[in-house]
Amino acid sequence: MSNLTINADRLIRRIEELGSLGRDAQGRLVRVAASDMDRLGRDRLVSWLKEAGLEVAVDRIGNIFGIWRDNANTDLAPVMLGSHIDTVIDAGIYDGCYGVLAGLEAIESLKEAGFAPARPLVVAAFTNEEGVRYSPDMMGSLVYAGGVGIEDALAAVGTDGTVLGKELERIGYAGQHQPGFLKPHVYVELHVEQGPVLEREGIAIGAVENLQGISWQRITIDGEANHAGTTPMAMRRDAGVAAARVISFIADRASASRARTVATVGTIAFEPNAINVIPARAIFTIDLRDPNEASLKAEEAALAAFLDELAASAGVTVQAESLARFEPVTFDARVVALIEAGAKAAGLSCRRMTSGAGHDAQMIARIAPSAMIFVPSRGGISHNPAEFTAAGELIAGANILLGVTAGLAVD
Amino acid sequence: MSNLTINADRLIRRIEELGSLGRDAQGRLVRVAASDMDRLGRDRLVSWLKEAGLEVAVDRIGNIFGIWRDNANTDLAPVMLGSHIDTVIDAGIYDGCYGVLAGLEAIESLKEAGFAPARPLVVAAFTNEEGVRYSPDMMGSLVYAGGVGIEDALAAVGTDGTVLGKELERIGYAGQHQPGFLKPHVYVELHVEQGPVLEREGIAIGAVENLQGISWQRITIDGEANHAGTTPMAMRRDAGVAAARVISFIADRASASRARTVATVGTIAFEPNAINVIPARAIFTIDLRDPNEASLKAEEAALAAFLDELAASAGVTVQAESLARFEPVTFDARVVALIEAGAKAAGLSCRRMTSGAGHDAQMIARIAPSAMIFVPSRGGISHNPAEFTAAGELIAGANILLGVTAGLAVD
Repeated sequence: MSNLTINADRLIRRIEELGSLGRDAQGRLVRVAASDMDRLGRDRLVSWLKEAGLEVAVDRIGNIFGIWRDNANTDLAPVMLGSHIDTVIDAGIYDGCYGVLAGLEAIESLKEAGFAPARPLVVAAFTNEEGVRYSPDMMGSLVYAGGVGIEDALAAVGTDGTVLGKELERIGYAGQHQPGFLKPHVYVELHVEQGPVLEREGIAIGAVENLQGISWQRITIDGEANHAGTTPMAMRRDAGVAAARVISFIADRASASRARTVATVGTIAFEPNAINVIPARAIFTIDLRDPNEASLKAEEAALAAFLDELAASAGVTVQAESLARFEPVTFDARVVALIEAGAKAAGLSCRRMTSGAGHDAQMIARIAPSAMIFVPSRGGISHNPAEFTAAGELIAGANILLGVTAGLAVD
Repeated sequence: MSNLTINADRLIRRIEELGSLGRDAQGRLVRVAASDMDRLGRDRLVSWLKEAGLEVAVDRIGNIFGIWRDNANTDLAPVMLGSHIDTVIDAGIYDGCYGVLAGLEAIESLKEAGFAPARPLVVAAFTNEEGVRYSPDMMGSLVYAGGVGIEDALAAVGTDGTVLGKELERIGYAGQHQPGFLKPHVYVELHVEQGPVLEREGIAIGAVENLQGISWQRITIDGEANHAGTTPMAMRRDAGVAAARVISFIADRASASRARTVATVGTIAFEPNAINVIPARAIFTIDLRDPNEASLKAEEAALAAFLDELAASAGVTVQAESLARFEPVTFDARVVALIEAGAKAAGLSCRRMTSGAGHDAQMIARIAPSAMIFVPSRGGISHNPAEFTAAGELIAGANILLGVTAGLAVD
């Protein structure tokens, strides 16, 4: 298959065209799940699937599938490629969309080249990966993998008070298929890295071998509000200083962890939040990630122990509440090796890596061998209109996907 | 004079009655400067000044004076007592009001007892000490001491868009006297501590010998927003972690300063303030106070040096902006000694102390020998309806003020 390549112009044109759809009055890309803007993107994707001669299927949670069964043994489980086309508010054009359109491109190119797959090939666009309007994120793939019941998911109430099931009906994407109706033989997701590693190391292809576990917590520290001028330091119960100790602690610990753990305090608020009042309360979030479940548990335990010590030493009370918890996912070693081999054959630099972000692949990994391919993200920037990957890098990644798909399709 | 005492019932009754005036629909005490609520308090104070047979004078910035000239040599500069009766929003009933009403009570009691002062006695209620509606705080006493021009002060625009001069006219307190028209021989201000020291040490009277200098700064740290999952610790420029380092640094430094410096970070905000995004920006305030100007400057310099190091080591940029800067005030040693002597004669425990809060006395100290007397504040709580000082403690403080006033009046 090494002489097969994708139609690079068509891929880039589609990425740009999809990126032009679903923009608001200020020009921001806002294809949030099951919105009118999302419908614009879905309708265009469906038209491209049909142009490519694929059979289009939609399941009850609105996941869209383009299926190529010709010449294949339709009793065999399909090779599934995919990602999502919903976006955050004020998004870039690559996150998710690249994986869906490159999956379509790989299948369409194979089809045009007269390739004879042993099993069906499918490209999937999963509903509501971003989780901006409805929780949880990665919902379509989670439901598809059986992690949440379809009725519960359809009843999800959005930030705007809407109900997901009603919105899917309204935009014409409440399909008839049961989620999970096509059980993949293998699932491969191509995605922009959304991180700085490949760019900074000058590497073209990431063979993603695992995905970090995530532990999100909300920490509430209660101290005592007092006058900033009249309260001696030794008499204070300063919730803000206690919060600062926690932030430093987790940053120092993660930095010392041989670059595997990452820890972030992204949000914070003090109460009463007055310049001359000692904070009575500090509320902040902690985002802890590690590719190894035992390590992630050790980080959580170390944090809990530190919070206990802090409560005792700083005269504050501390509450920790879990907001989200996902175990790490290990991707399929055979598929990861195929990605590496494909990059090597194409003369592209490649490294094994961990995905720091969540992706649909982590859900589909529950029901099928899965892996991901990353290409560089300029500056690691994502969820931002400045998100950028050069056309050459996008094309290179799509060609690796094509080769991997071809290899898996004759398996 | 040791057999003279105040009329304790009258003082407590007036404190409670003044505290009942100027409450909103939720029952909160809201006598913010030059408001209709403030007028209610002012009108009642003026009626009490008149009942006591004092001459009432109002100056152009709305400061109210009750003057007792009988029997005195009116060519001599007056002994001035005072504080303020404006309040914060949802205030307690003691802050400021206690000093004004105890000053009135001291003069009225001396007058009723047939005391013959050598010089006039004056009680003052200064406008807008709290600075909630109009900036700066301590405005009335600042203008009175010549620190700000009267026209500039009257042009101050409030948080509600009103102009102070117009509001003073509207409520009937735009007086004719030039601020500073009575230059005090000496000024004494009695106040609740608004801090925990006297209560925790079980001491009845604070002889306030100085007032901390204040340095308020706003710090803005700019780093780089990046994905919390995909950005290795070593590649981060985390503005939030940098802010935490600063908070810990100033708390540790102040705690090690032999209890003279106090340092507080009361407000903070991260941007973009999302759980899974490394903070691009942290904005927070620092409130540094020290009774010694050289020490305060040393603290400011240490902070500036730390911020420089941080910018270099954490890959962030740091801006520091001064929001307010007042030098420490040293009160008049002779008046402080008189307070101590008075407490001793009355059999009350007394300690010299520093005021951590700003007070009108710090402004009047620019034009006359000044000092303050503190009584305990339950839990150090102030600017809060829970502010509390027991009647016995209030009465004890007012009797010390009476004795000090009598001593100064025959000087």
